[in-house]
Amino acid sequence: MCETKLQIVVLAGGSGTRFWPVSRRERPKQLLEINGKTLLASTFERVRRLGPPSNWWMVVGDDHAERCRATVPEVPVSHVLVEPARRNTASAIALAAVHIAESDPDAVMAVFPADHMVRDTKRLCDALERAARRAKDGAIVTLGITPTHPETGYGYIQRRGSANEVGGYGVARFVEKPDRQGAEALLSGQDVYWNAGIFVMRVDVFCHALAEHQPEIDAAMAKIVKSIGSNYEATLAACYEELPKISVDHGIMEFANNVEVVPVDCGWSDIGTWTAFAELFGVDDAGNRSQGRAVLLDSRDCIVHVGDGHAVATLGVRGLVVVHTKDATLVVSADRVQEVGKIVDALKERQWSEYL
Amino acid sequence: MCETKLQIVVLAGGSGTRFWPVSRRERPKQLLEINGKTLLASTFERVRRLGPPSNWWMVVGDDHAERCRATVPEVPVSHVLVEPARRNTASAIALAAVHIAESDPDAVMAVFPADHMVRDTKRLCDALERAARRAKDGAIVTLGITPTHPETGYGYIQRRGSANEVGGYGVARFVEKPDRQGAEALLSGQDVYWNAGIFVMRVDVFCHALAEHQPEIDAAMAKIVKSIGSNYEATLAACYEELPKISVDHGIMEFANNVEVVPVDCGWSDIGTWTAFAELFGVDDAGNRSQGRAVLLDSRDCIVHVGDGHAVATLGVRGLVVVHTKDATLVVSADRVQEVGKIVDALKERQWSEYL
Repeated sequence: MCETKLQIVVLAGGSGTRFWPVSRRERPKQLLEINGKTLLASTFERVRRLGPPSNWWMVVGDDHAERCRATVPEVPVSHVLVEPARRNTASAIALAAVHIAESDPDAVMAVFPADHMVRDTKRLCDALERAARRAKDGAIVTLGITPTHPETGYGYIQRRGSANEVGGYGVARFVEKPDRQGAEALLSGQDVYWNAGIFVMRVDVFCHALAEHQPEIDAAMAKIVKSIGSNYEATLAACYEELPKISVDHGIMEFANNVEVVPVDCGWSDIGTWTAFAELFGVDDAGNRSQGRAVLLDSRDCIVHVGDGHAVATLGVRGLVVVHTKDATLVVSADRVQEVGKIVDALKERQWSEYL
Repeated sequence: MCETKLQIVVLAGGSGTRFWPVSRRERPKQLLEINGKTLLASTFERVRRLGPPSNWWMVVGDDHAERCRATVPEVPVSHVLVEPARRNTASAIALAAVHIAESDPDAVMAVFPADHMVRDTKRLCDALERAARRAKDGAIVTLGITPTHPETGYGYIQRRGSANEVGGYGVARFVEKPDRQGAEALLSGQDVYWNAGIFVMRVDVFCHALAEHQPEIDAAMAKIVKSIGSNYEATLAACYEELPKISVDHGIMEFANNVEVVPVDCGWSDIGTWTAFAELFGVDDAGNRSQGRAVLLDSRDCIVHVGDGHAVATLGVRGLVVVHTKDATLVVSADRVQEVGKIVDALKERQWSEYL
């Protein structure tokens, strides 16, 4: 067990257009239910042993604040941090960090995206505890997921040197989503991990790195934290208006020299696309994965997800993803699932807003 | 104009599983509406000038009798002939022939499938009139549709000899649905037509051919016609139980030596498949044809048919047919549309009868 409890920060501001038509404006990906629980609620649940609900924090967009709050009512009201605009992860984590630092500047926080899946919760928590030991000593620790295939949808982390006392490593570099060839080359090196966007660090260490590498965000956060209890919301809105849109990877992790990676093989998936989501379904002899009433005749390597009461039948097709919902249906080539957001754009253009 | 009016016989007993999911047990293809009118009603309408409603006859299955009657109320009640079982076209035409012969043994009847489309009604009627002139002299005349492409979904009629006084020909042979290569070879001969299943003939001539080539059906029809006004329905049921399932092409036309073909180029389509049906939609630059709310991104040669209120989006796909209805959706490779009936079989096997 971890000696000190962690502060659990879940970033729930995403919109997830790649999950259309199941994910909608009114129901972003973190609010999708899998096995009867939203991804957001599951994100907190699986690390409950590392930090009790009184340590839970949630950074949300103002459009989904109420729905996010409702799905995890255990999060203390004052721990639901509502961003008035989307400014990517550097600012979102910074906002949580300065709030936590108000009462506990030495706290160790563990930061999670709100919309991932982890099959092996125990391994995840064990790795987080090991990461926390290094974080307490001043490291910024990322979890590195042992890659199982040359995935082009994820960023990679390349380690350097030999293992430290918790089985972690220094970080040589962060690698952006590679192409297929690049991903294969990376995997052959045996020294890379998938970047899951999970970080463990002391809030003061993070704030220090923020001041060094993102002074603009740091200055804004100083104003924001000073306004708590007085004109907080107006200050927040004004500051957010000016904040740069930058990820924590690009804005801080790539520059900081105290970044480490703790490898973990915990059945993680960002289920960022329909093909990743379908890994959760059963597979038939022809490589098809389906949920709901699906009839697949002479069809191979297809994914079919059907809403209640409806039937989908395929014949003579291959490598397709078919997703049916009550009012919209998606048919996409499996190798194009990353681009489903384009459909959302096209629907906006046509002003078919009822399907957004 | 035709001197004598024709007896118009429409065969409406089909079930049309290739049109699933729009066509259902409760709504066979002949009852599908195109431009606000059922295919069955349109079949009568387009030949109205050749025969008034008092000459209209309809052979229907007992499962759809009421719905068929309702869509063409002008057909005299006694002219709606209900088959107690499906025995293919030889028996269906024979049933109409013996009923017509009761009051007018020399009548010329024109027989039509109930579920085809014809764009140029005038050309069709003109050809039927020419056919009728030959029919009056004792020929069994089929219409031969000028083929526009090497279609593998249709049967072919090969002519022989030179043109007669109405521009018709003798028939060398009927050719079953060919494969692609066979269809191309046939077309190169310049002497073949698509078999539309449209026949013009005197009822006595047909009955004579029936007696010669299908004595079993002929004998049954004699019993049936004798029972009119007494125990008709019981006799019909008993006789139909025993009738062979055989088409008029296989059972009679291939053997009769007085069969002729009158060519016509009238924009005919049996719309027997989704690809044929889509010929009625507009086509975009990428070869896509769609109806309803469809968004096709980076998609080529696709057909998308969407029910009211729903949206279908495709991305990165090619040569697909997607048909959405309220409770079922079809996704089929365009080159497999002939096999959609297999899906209906699969649904039966799974006992998902609500989608049949």
